[in-house]
Amino acid sequence: MSARGNLFIVSAPSGAGKSSLIAALLTDKPTDMQVSVSHTTRKPRPGESHGQHYYFVSVDDFKTLIAEGAFLEWAEVFGNYYGTSRKVIEQALADGIDVFLDIDWQGALQIKQQMPEAVGIFILPPSRAELERRLTGRGQDSAEVIAARMAKAVSEMSHYKEYDFIIVNDQFEQALADLRAIIRSQRLTQASQINTHSDMLKGLLAD
Amino acid sequence: MSARGNLFIVSAPSGAGKSSLIAALLTDKPTDMQVSVSHTTRKPRPGESHGQHYYFVSVDDFKTLIAEGAFLEWAEVFGNYYGTSRKVIEQALADGIDVFLDIDWQGALQIKQQMPEAVGIFILPPSRAELERRLTGRGQDSAEVIAARMAKAVSEMSHYKEYDFIIVNDQFEQALADLRAIIRSQRLTQASQINTHSDMLKGLLAD
Repeated sequence: MSARGNLFIVSAPSGAGKSSLIAALLTDKPTDMQVSVSHTTRKPRPGESHGQHYYFVSVDDFKTLIAEGAFLEWAEVFGNYYGTSRKVIEQALADGIDVFLDIDWQGALQIKQQMPEAVGIFILPPSRAELERRLTGRGQDSAEVIAARMAKAVSEMSHYKEYDFIIVNDQFEQALADLRAIIRSQRLTQASQINTHSDMLKGLLAD
Repeated sequence: MSARGNLFIVSAPSGAGKSSLIAALLTDKPTDMQVSVSHTTRKPRPGESHGQHYYFVSVDDFKTLIAEGAFLEWAEVFGNYYGTSRKVIEQALADGIDVFLDIDWQGALQIKQQMPEAVGIFILPPSRAELERRLTGRGQDSAEVIAARMAKAVSEMSHYKEYDFIIVNDQFEQALADLRAIIRSQRLTQASQINTHSDMLKGLLAD
């Protein structure tokens, strides 16, 4: 039996650097890692293609999929539906691919209820001051807008205890090495290794 | 609060390469990793020093320590006592040092009962044939001696399911990278990070 992939839920407040970390992880186009492709009812934007950026479906189709229990998690955002298909995830994992779900704590909670073996990773900024600096942007936003961003970030961060691992993104390269270590270590858990090496283990332990 | 170290139990059958892996890990003399120093009643050999290779104590002192519950695990081997002092381990962990316990499955079981947070790592050879090759040595041993070694190795390996992580030592550099990934990832667990970054978290989550 070959190695099965692991499912990683990656959450973070805006400003923690989550997207940059995931992009860096995939920059060499590894064949055994991918970001989950969601289903959505919103229209494709220029350059977006079906199956690569999203699975674009109609609202009726999306609601049918909800009714069939096809989604590990789904949400409605600004009138559009977004969801993570169980079948898409399961196929990738069975192909030995580690799958990354870039979702917030509410989506993470839904995933964990249905796939408790999913590994939750929360990314934090190194300090309040640094977070404010990152969320202030180029000084073109009002104090109210920045305060609202901070409040949203603090609200998201309050859920860090629901995750298995926490990465503090102070030095980017260190945070990336942290992320890689977590991913590598999850291939080495007893459950993963028994699955990967079942034949070898039989051979080793034969009388 | 600064980072607390983690306790790693490393077990393997003879021939799996455990000693070489631990030696490679410590080759650059990292200040935040060490192999646990055991107490023993056997006499020091030339070159061995108290506190570095072992804590050399009398049988009476050892028995007193047993009675006081000072050992996380202990065993009698060929008439000598060997034990792992709880105080020695706790001090190193409190100093932020990752401690490695190089013990067999029986010692591992005792440790896990007293310190369930200890992380068990089991190292396996890549195949039966390779294990036999490694245990055959330089062809100077009888078939009976080799068969006895194999039986002992198989007996030890039968306990791999009692460990959190499994490393297959096929390519040494890969196995070493596996070991490093596990060690690094254990600094990133929620429990470790909450301990390491308690002040930072308070600052981040203040209203």
